[in-house]
Amino acid sequence: MKFTVDRKDASSRARSGTLKTGHGEISTPVFMPVATQATVKTVSSQELIECDVEMIISNVYHLYMRPGEEIIKKAGGLHKFMSWDKPITTDSGGFQVFSLAELRKIREEGVEFQSHIDGSRHFFTPESVIDTQLIFGSDIMMPLDECVHYPAQRGYVEDSVDLTVKWAKRSKKRLEEKGPGGALFGIVQGSTYRDLRERCAEELTAMDMDGYALGGIGVGEPVELINEITDYTASLLPEEKIRYLMGVGTPPDVLEAISYGLDMFDCVVPTRNGRNGQAFTFSGEVQLRNAPFKEDFTPIDPDCNCFACRNYTRGYIRHLFNTDEILGLRLISLHNIHFYVNLIKLSREAIQKGRFAEFKKDFIDQFSSQK
Amino acid sequence: MKFTVDRKDASSRARSGTLKTGHGEISTPVFMPVATQATVKTVSSQELIECDVEMIISNVYHLYMRPGEEIIKKAGGLHKFMSWDKPITTDSGGFQVFSLAELRKIREEGVEFQSHIDGSRHFFTPESVIDTQLIFGSDIMMPLDECVHYPAQRGYVEDSVDLTVKWAKRSKKRLEEKGPGGALFGIVQGSTYRDLRERCAEELTAMDMDGYALGGIGVGEPVELINEITDYTASLLPEEKIRYLMGVGTPPDVLEAISYGLDMFDCVVPTRNGRNGQAFTFSGEVQLRNAPFKEDFTPIDPDCNCFACRNYTRGYIRHLFNTDEILGLRLISLHNIHFYVNLIKLSREAIQKGRFAEFKKDFIDQFSSQK
Repeated sequence: MKFTVDRKDASSRARSGTLKTGHGEISTPVFMPVATQATVKTVSSQELIECDVEMIISNVYHLYMRPGEEIIKKAGGLHKFMSWDKPITTDSGGFQVFSLAELRKIREEGVEFQSHIDGSRHFFTPESVIDTQLIFGSDIMMPLDECVHYPAQRGYVEDSVDLTVKWAKRSKKRLEEKGPGGALFGIVQGSTYRDLRERCAEELTAMDMDGYALGGIGVGEPVELINEITDYTASLLPEEKIRYLMGVGTPPDVLEAISYGLDMFDCVVPTRNGRNGQAFTFSGEVQLRNAPFKEDFTPIDPDCNCFACRNYTRGYIRHLFNTDEILGLRLISLHNIHFYVNLIKLSREAIQKGRFAEFKKDFIDQFSSQK
Repeated sequence: MKFTVDRKDASSRARSGTLKTGHGEISTPVFMPVATQATVKTVSSQELIECDVEMIISNVYHLYMRPGEEIIKKAGGLHKFMSWDKPITTDSGGFQVFSLAELRKIREEGVEFQSHIDGSRHFFTPESVIDTQLIFGSDIMMPLDECVHYPAQRGYVEDSVDLTVKWAKRSKKRLEEKGPGGALFGIVQGSTYRDLRERCAEELTAMDMDGYALGGIGVGEPVELINEITDYTASLLPEEKIRYLMGVGTPPDVLEAISYGLDMFDCVVPTRNGRNGQAFTFSGEVQLRNAPFKEDFTPIDPDCNCFACRNYTRGYIRHLFNTDEILGLRLISLHNIHFYVNLIKLSREAIQKGRFAEFKKDFIDQFSSQK
């Protein structure tokens, strides 16, 4: 993997760049739809391509559980398994072990837990998680880390940062021994403690990882604190390396993070909200299940050229939701993914023209105007 | 609407033809996927086109309930509402009133019933059902009829046939007054009583309907009786008019009916079975949720060129079902619709070559070989 910062915005710390991966070159900033179980919910891989999606993210925890790494190995890797020929990032599953799994026991060696599906016992180590991602053929791999809840005691977070750094080291070593494989990022943890974020960033930077992710953000903190910690943590990271803000966020959140110099994003918001009937437009979010849309035979967004907006109306989509018809879930999911990709494209253009701050302000003003 | 029998099969009563509708010309025999609620479940209208679907069937009862005829009127008709520019047949809702609705009261005037959704009271008359279909802009309309369960007392069926014929007359009159509109079929009822089927067919034929449907078949009778009644009833109908077997059936059922000279079919089997994990192949039905498919990385059918078979494997689709991912429902539904359309195309070719009986026998032998 090779990351190049092509342009810097004159009005903020935003930057655009190019990322060469094992599955082609993509542009940054980049937004990754979430394919937790080797499918972006309701949408086919071919539809993602039509939406100009450049990279997706999947998940070690979920795929390890089902279908299991043996099946993905036999399928010839994750790309072939899910018929997706562009880059794939895989999260280590650390977050899922801490949010989904039961009876979790963290030791320095690794983490023992019970499956949320059938209660079966499993043990993840930094090494096993790298091995799994090598089997998947992930273009960007995440090391096992501990994602701490908010709020967290300082002492707990200190120990946790130590563990995350040690695990990153072991992950890197494992990849060097077992590779070649995809790029390996370091995940900067440290909760809301600036000095712990700083220590974590320093130690990971010293290890010269391929890129850096900001983890443990957006796990319950107030929005001001999210922005402050994101901004601060991004400023600690080397300019020449790609920076990934994990699991964030709404369209304004993403633009905010771009202005701090973040390059990579993933979030379930476009698909999850879509399945709940909420569609994104530049004038804000629209709940299509609401009664007034019953007789609205215009597209979700008349300026949008996604598959849903080219072919279907708000009134029809409302009918689909009203009658529990599955096509409705897909149409809004597709529209929302297209919306995010388009927002990122426009951000990239604004950065290249040196006017990202203005673009961000205009977008947020308009997006928030209906609320 | 204009129907022309182009060719007759030398080996059976099968025939191929051409049907000119308000939304283009199509070939017969024709299979209509079922779009009960203005959507073929899980599939977009554009995907139906890719499957070479030529006509679909929707339903007065369901669309009258949701979204209601006013909404469809405001959308500019059913074609526009659901983004489908090819012909649409609509069933009158008679079957649904008798199978879904509650507290049904049949009078000569019409049928009173309570909605299966919210218990609200409604009254359908032959006239109201024609009016609704005119609003929809249906290419082929069905008159309100009484679909009798099996087994049924002769006396009940006699009265019911009388009612169905009277209602067909009133439907035709209403269309003449309120039209122009789509074609209007007569529905031949009469349960398993040959003489009642004959009487119904005679009286409807005397009315010179645009086409004739066989109703009340496949509602619980043994398969031999289904075939006998279908065969017999088809033989009563005028050669120059199109014949529609309502709600039938499996691939062998459809071929059997084609051999009796039936031209039009609709059935939920391809989509309903698809949503249950069952995929059709020329070697029989395959339950993709079964464990052995876990490691099967071949397409559902290697000889099939549908979207699912071009892009995805049995093992991946099984994973989607195993993890409750919606894409799986769509992939098998698409494959099954493609299978039915392809089977009909091959039937047409066989008819035109005068070898349909042989084609039917070969297909059924191979299709049943795995069972």
